[in-house]
Amino acid sequence: MSLPAEIEALDRADPLREFRAQFELPPGVTYLDGNSLGALSRRTRGRLASVIDAEWGRGLITSWNDAHWIALPQRVGDKIGRLIGAAPGQVLAADSTTVNLYKVLCVALQAHPGRRVILSERGNFPTDLYVIEGAIAQLGQGHELLLVDGTEDAIEGALAERGREIATVVLTHVHYTSSRVYDMEHVTRTAQACGATMIWDLSHSAGVVPVQLDGCEVDFAVGCGYKHLNGGPGAPAFLYAAREWQQRPWQPIAGWMGDARPFDFHAGYEPAAGISRYLSGTPSVIALSALESSVDLILEAPMAEIRRKSVALGDLFVDLVERHCAGMGLELVSPRDGRLRGSHVSYRHPESYPLMQALIAAGVIGDCRPPDLMRFGFAPLYLSYADIWQAVMRLAEILQTRRRHGG
Amino acid sequence: MSLPAEIEALDRADPLREFRAQFELPPGVTYLDGNSLGALSRRTRGRLASVIDAEWGRGLITSWNDAHWIALPQRVGDKIGRLIGAAPGQVLAADSTTVNLYKVLCVALQAHPGRRVILSERGNFPTDLYVIEGAIAQLGQGHELLLVDGTEDAIEGALAERGREIATVVLTHVHYTSSRVYDMEHVTRTAQACGATMIWDLSHSAGVVPVQLDGCEVDFAVGCGYKHLNGGPGAPAFLYAAREWQQRPWQPIAGWMGDARPFDFHAGYEPAAGISRYLSGTPSVIALSALESSVDLILEAPMAEIRRKSVALGDLFVDLVERHCAGMGLELVSPRDGRLRGSHVSYRHPESYPLMQALIAAGVIGDCRPPDLMRFGFAPLYLSYADIWQAVMRLAEILQTRRRHGG
Repeated sequence: MSLPAEIEALDRADPLREFRAQFELPPGVTYLDGNSLGALSRRTRGRLASVIDAEWGRGLITSWNDAHWIALPQRVGDKIGRLIGAAPGQVLAADSTTVNLYKVLCVALQAHPGRRVILSERGNFPTDLYVIEGAIAQLGQGHELLLVDGTEDAIEGALAERGREIATVVLTHVHYTSSRVYDMEHVTRTAQACGATMIWDLSHSAGVVPVQLDGCEVDFAVGCGYKHLNGGPGAPAFLYAAREWQQRPWQPIAGWMGDARPFDFHAGYEPAAGISRYLSGTPSVIALSALESSVDLILEAPMAEIRRKSVALGDLFVDLVERHCAGMGLELVSPRDGRLRGSHVSYRHPESYPLMQALIAAGVIGDCRPPDLMRFGFAPLYLSYADIWQAVMRLAEILQTRRRHGG
Repeated sequence: MSLPAEIEALDRADPLREFRAQFELPPGVTYLDGNSLGALSRRTRGRLASVIDAEWGRGLITSWNDAHWIALPQRVGDKIGRLIGAAPGQVLAADSTTVNLYKVLCVALQAHPGRRVILSERGNFPTDLYVIEGAIAQLGQGHELLLVDGTEDAIEGALAERGREIATVVLTHVHYTSSRVYDMEHVTRTAQACGATMIWDLSHSAGVVPVQLDGCEVDFAVGCGYKHLNGGPGAPAFLYAAREWQQRPWQPIAGWMGDARPFDFHAGYEPAAGISRYLSGTPSVIALSALESSVDLILEAPMAEIRRKSVALGDLFVDLVERHCAGMGLELVSPRDGRLRGSHVSYRHPESYPLMQALIAAGVIGDCRPPDLMRFGFAPLYLSYADIWQAVMRLAEILQTRRRHGG
């Protein structure tokens, strides 16, 4: 089937269409998994070559000053801050999402010695819950992880019922399977009205869903560098601590990069002024440089256009599935209304795993999540409407073939 | 002055001389700071190009399985293990030295609920002490950091006096300025005889000083990937936990990479079997790949030859300084006996900073450490005896010039 004219028209009218040439996607592949691992851009490849050959290879130790390696966590953090509504001086890029969540969680718990409950949702990304369980086990102060359904009603219900016991609320802004988006401002204000500290995980939001951390007066946020930020596999994560959380006592993992005078090699830890006190050890310069270059590229696209196209790609995918895959066992588990979704959609299907294997063999890369979900992500900077059309046509072909063969 | 024949003879007889061609050092530079940031090898450059272009760029998400990214922390850990006397399954490469030290320290403290003292030395690398201070502040259980002089006598004296209160001893095997090496076996056995848990920081040892962690029955060790392991700026660090410490309750930073079934996305953290439970979040694949390739290269050189040459380079440096810089204010603060030193030496000089600036301008790169130390490191795989001779000749010229000009 040849590409319909209306799909071609969408691509022609796409204000972000020039960005695609910046990415080096393998030929013959429609990549719908940028929500798991963002793609490599030419700019990032160039920056990596330069940090490896010139800065490390030739500059050696002098690059800590000459190439400003020492300022990377704060500089990359400030750039990510522009994507998530954070004024400068409140975001760092370093460590993993797990380690960053551990740090801010410990600070939040320390701030509420009289409260023993941590509120989250049952379906939160497991590692976020593991971090909470780990901190509870370590502190040994009888904290309780209260898990409720992942709806604003359920969160508010728990806050209404046990608000005075709740030290902190930990939620993921865009759900990793359903793609449902919380109303950040409303949830944050409700939590804070009960005296709780609000921590958001922006792993599936940053770079693709507009976020206003300062505007919502969020306390803390963390998030991932290797999904929609395109920072490369295992890229450094980020950590946001609102200015008022930068005067607190220590975060738990005190290290020289978070000290006021790291190159004085002095006795007695003195937390640095501002956000830097949330640093610990030395982050990977190569990995941070890759992340910086990919964030720079995203910053060249207006966030409103990114969001508009992300929603449009998702809507097109869902429309086409409704039209071409009806009655073939796919059940949309993401909100049908694109305004309530992040930049991916998930479908339930009893044969999700073999179906996805067949799709990947046909050049359409998405992923599966247990027990029976197929997940498709939409990266507005390197996907076209034609890609979406191609992907759904392949999916429809595979479903039809399987049905004919009783698959 | 032309290179003396006996120096040339040393290089001709050097069994490691072929390794130098593997490194891409800038022309005209004598690099004596591999103890701060190891040099880039051709192999590492090649591996980086391959992980960036082929594995990330073309393989995208499929490389987690196809390129075995998921096994990197354990695989690289096992390779580092061969350099530090650790049988497979006890070392991981991930996170920073700071984060790793925090993890093992918390586990060690948890194992000794009745003991409240952490013993270390006053001159330990500051970040190690900061980590201890941070953990003490966070736990809020009245732990005490007991600091004594950095000698085996002082450590043993403290253990004899307060051994029953000491939960853990945290020491750096090779001192970051003096280069003094502890007798690991003796100190470990003395600490353990008091019931304390022994933690070693191998940041200045790994890759250049032979270490037998299993042989010395060490409990825990951590160390740096970017010094003598040549893993690149901010390379991932490593963590050793002896087998008996792999059945303990949780390390504090529980995350999905340390879970038994990370891709099941299940509720309720279940620490993985073995060393993997010490993982937390997703480490940088690019940074870990660089580290793996540089460790592979080191593994091609017999450790006994590496150590022999490291000591010989250091001895030559000290000899030449004695011969050519006598009476010019340099005071050796490292052991004169090479068997008691790591792979660097430090000198005290009242004008250490301007002297080092002049040396760097003359193409000899070392570094300074407060208050008045000049530090020179000897990387046996990419330095020649001629390099050492050149460096000391430059140093002597600079000292003589400054003396003539009353500098």
